[in-house]
Amino acid sequence: MNPTVWLIGAGPGDPELLTLKAVKALAQAEVVLVDDLVNPQVLEYCPQARIVRVGKRGGCRSTPQEFIQRLMLRYARQGLRVARLKGGDPCIFGRGGEEAQWLSDRGVACEIVNGITAGLAAATSSGIPLTLRGMAQGVTLITAHSQDETTPDWSGLARSGTTLVVYMGVAKVQDMSSQLLAAGMAADTPVAMIERASLPEQRLCPSSLAAMARDADAFQLRSPAILVIGQVAACRMFGIADAPPLAEPAARPLRRQA
Amino acid sequence: MNPTVWLIGAGPGDPELLTLKAVKALAQAEVVLVDDLVNPQVLEYCPQARIVRVGKRGGCRSTPQEFIQRLMLRYARQGLRVARLKGGDPCIFGRGGEEAQWLSDRGVACEIVNGITAGLAAATSSGIPLTLRGMAQGVTLITAHSQDETTPDWSGLARSGTTLVVYMGVAKVQDMSSQLLAAGMAADTPVAMIERASLPEQRLCPSSLAAMARDADAFQLRSPAILVIGQVAACRMFGIADAPPLAEPAARPLRRQA
Repeated sequence: MNPTVWLIGAGPGDPELLTLKAVKALAQAEVVLVDDLVNPQVLEYCPQARIVRVGKRGGCRSTPQEFIQRLMLRYARQGLRVARLKGGDPCIFGRGGEEAQWLSDRGVACEIVNGITAGLAAATSSGIPLTLRGMAQGVTLITAHSQDETTPDWSGLARSGTTLVVYMGVAKVQDMSSQLLAAGMAADTPVAMIERASLPEQRLCPSSLAAMARDADAFQLRSPAILVIGQVAACRMFGIADAPPLAEPAARPLRRQA
Repeated sequence: MNPTVWLIGAGPGDPELLTLKAVKALAQAEVVLVDDLVNPQVLEYCPQARIVRVGKRGGCRSTPQEFIQRLMLRYARQGLRVARLKGGDPCIFGRGGEEAQWLSDRGVACEIVNGITAGLAAATSSGIPLTLRGMAQGVTLITAHSQDETTPDWSGLARSGTTLVVYMGVAKVQDMSSQLLAAGMAADTPVAMIERASLPEQRLCPSSLAAMARDADAFQLRSPAILVIGQVAACRMFGIADAPPLAEPAARPLRRQA
């Protein structure tokens, strides 16, 4: 099966959270289709490539999914090395599965390059571990804004005892809070709402399950944001932010072995 | 707060899944404490560092957690640049939260560097998207083998409708299967059991909720392995494995801006 498209996770924002594999693929791409949520600094790794912006955020909801897929297919059939850059990871709320399947059905293979998902980076950079012995035995990544109009089973989630990490939840904070309270989750369950995860302008709004709607409002919380709900949200692995910035290392090969 | 220790996620195994930030920190480290599950190839990024192996796997369960923490503290207080390399991500079943807090209580700041978690890489490299519109609205990462002897609420998890990704579950396959069946999850729910995720020797054992114990046994499934339970486990985003290997890119700086 040939040609090939790379579906690349650009990570949460900080360009240093790109993987070596992503950098390697970007360096070889001839056309790069870029989503809105991707930090433009990431494009410094593919100065040779033609950049096509295919974001779907904002007022005009411009580029339909079908059009993006057809565009990838057309470039791939022209024999170009095509990369598609998505925020976070392509297969966690990124439609990577759909796109890979659609392209595969038309004879185009995909290579998926994992990225650090925004929920993980948001928590870590706020000093919150997603799992912690004796406190959170697991973590659930969920979206409040589903594309197929179904809602998560908040009651099952409340009972699961896992840390809940909610993507695309800013518009549904009140609803989420009510549902989880109704499902029996404690009103004082800690919540952390994190705007623009991993970027210098990241903001953290600490709250609780009962107060999160009011607090988000007072904080003027805006998308993109990640909501962390669970006991670990009260953790602040203190001292993290005080780490000195990393200096430039000596030049090193991206990979040693064949 | 000074000095500083880096807690670094080494990713699932494939050294190309390291982040740029991890490579940069490794290049500056003077002492690197390495867990068992870390691919030794990752150490090629820190040839200058003294390597201390602190694995806990296997028969002798050699290095107690407290000892590892004291070792990090001692090196940090000697003024050395200390890195601790963990498989996957430090804060997803990696004790990163505990260690950061312990060090912080003793005046040592931590910088946590995220890594690609094994469950994500295992799924992706098997052609499985963890979320998919109309099929899986979220994903739960959970460990079957809890360190504090509590068991997950399988019934809540079954109801959550999320894809379940189970870490350290090889010894508990039968138990997990029974509990999820008892919680009402369908017997034919697809399951994928993935051994040695992201490495060349990765193996995939496709199964179902009812048959997973028998299949794991026949397959001689060994740790480390990841179990993916849910409708998406039947997906094979076809063609992924056919992607041509990436060539060596031109040398590029790890970071452009200050």
